[in-house]
Amino acid sequence: MIDQAAPHLPEGVHLVPAHPVAGTEYSGPDAGFATLFLDRWCILTPPDGTDSGAIDRVTAFWTALGANVEVMTAEHHDLVLAITSHVPHLIAYNIVGTAADLEEVTQGEVIKFSAGGFRDFTRIAASDPTMWRDIFLHNKGAVLEMLGRLNEDIAILARAIRWGDGDALFDLFTRTRAIRRGIISEGQETPEPDFGRRREP
Amino acid sequence: MIDQAAPHLPEGVHLVPAHPVAGTEYSGPDAGFATLFLDRWCILTPPDGTDSGAIDRVTAFWTALGANVEVMTAEHHDLVLAITSHVPHLIAYNIVGTAADLEEVTQGEVIKFSAGGFRDFTRIAASDPTMWRDIFLHNKGAVLEMLGRLNEDIAILARAIRWGDGDALFDLFTRTRAIRRGIISEGQETPEPDFGRRREP
Repeated sequence: MIDQAAPHLPEGVHLVPAHPVAGTEYSGPDAGFATLFLDRWCILTPPDGTDSGAIDRVTAFWTALGANVEVMTAEHHDLVLAITSHVPHLIAYNIVGTAADLEEVTQGEVIKFSAGGFRDFTRIAASDPTMWRDIFLHNKGAVLEMLGRLNEDIAILARAIRWGDGDALFDLFTRTRAIRRGIISEGQETPEPDFGRRREP
Repeated sequence: MIDQAAPHLPEGVHLVPAHPVAGTEYSGPDAGFATLFLDRWCILTPPDGTDSGAIDRVTAFWTALGANVEVMTAEHHDLVLAITSHVPHLIAYNIVGTAADLEEVTQGEVIKFSAGGFRDFTRIAASDPTMWRDIFLHNKGAVLEMLGRLNEDIAILARAIRWGDGDALFDLFTRTRAIRRGIISEGQETPEPDFGRRREP
């Protein structure tokens, strides 16, 4: 995006790309709400040599909306987003697609019994198809790199299951809880069960 | 489980295994609440020749708790749960583990920017490690079969990204929305953005 826009900027105009890491599975102006950016992080990726006054003004804009601001290179942004957003979306789209294609299990069964965990994946797999197609085509390198690592780790896990290595499974399943706790203590999620889904009918 | 229990049952005792597909990432008696089973599905897997009166009594028990009941073979149950619950948990544990091990992206960054989609995976990756180790060791066949299919589909997607096949990506991303709509219209999820996570501070 930066490479495409930069050649067209007039003298004295500074480009400060900003990516607020916030949002829902809905798109467009009607999907906004007043606290959308509150306590979420906004990433700025100013190219080398960007005027520091311009960076300060963009920072002040996002801070005024309630966001926290972090500055990094565009290359690092693409890696960070590949693992925190793009690959999760790809996996979610993929598992929902695989489930829809099974011959032994009907789509009705997948829907009925989705409360067992599958449901969590469907939220992000309902995101805007056009935007996500373009994201994958534009962040190809980082997405394929992260996907490759994920596949290596899946192969190790599959082997542990096949050979009954319960300790390896237990170790991983214990380690992953720490990340969840970090996300909750940093205010990026609530600890309420089921994402705070209402319990009362 | 059925194979292990069946030889020890006295004459005239009928085993009607029941699996309520409901729950949160928390375990134990304190994690229960009054509406936990309301409108969720409970699967009964009575072996051939089970007394129909016994099945009726177990059905009445779960119905009284607010659940819907479906009867199927244990083998079909294991396949259905592999795709709707076990593989989603495995993938969630795996992606959280992969993210924790990266050298280019810090754990702090993964936590900060988790609102981009990653966060959704961490809920089920915080589930009880002992229970999940045992589930994978006991439903090995169905889990490995479903995981194999998922891997085939991921390979197709990775290829589409590598070669810039935007139409293939768009088609999948459109198809997966229908499953999400089915889950919402069947009452297994709310349509509120972010799983109805509260918007007001």
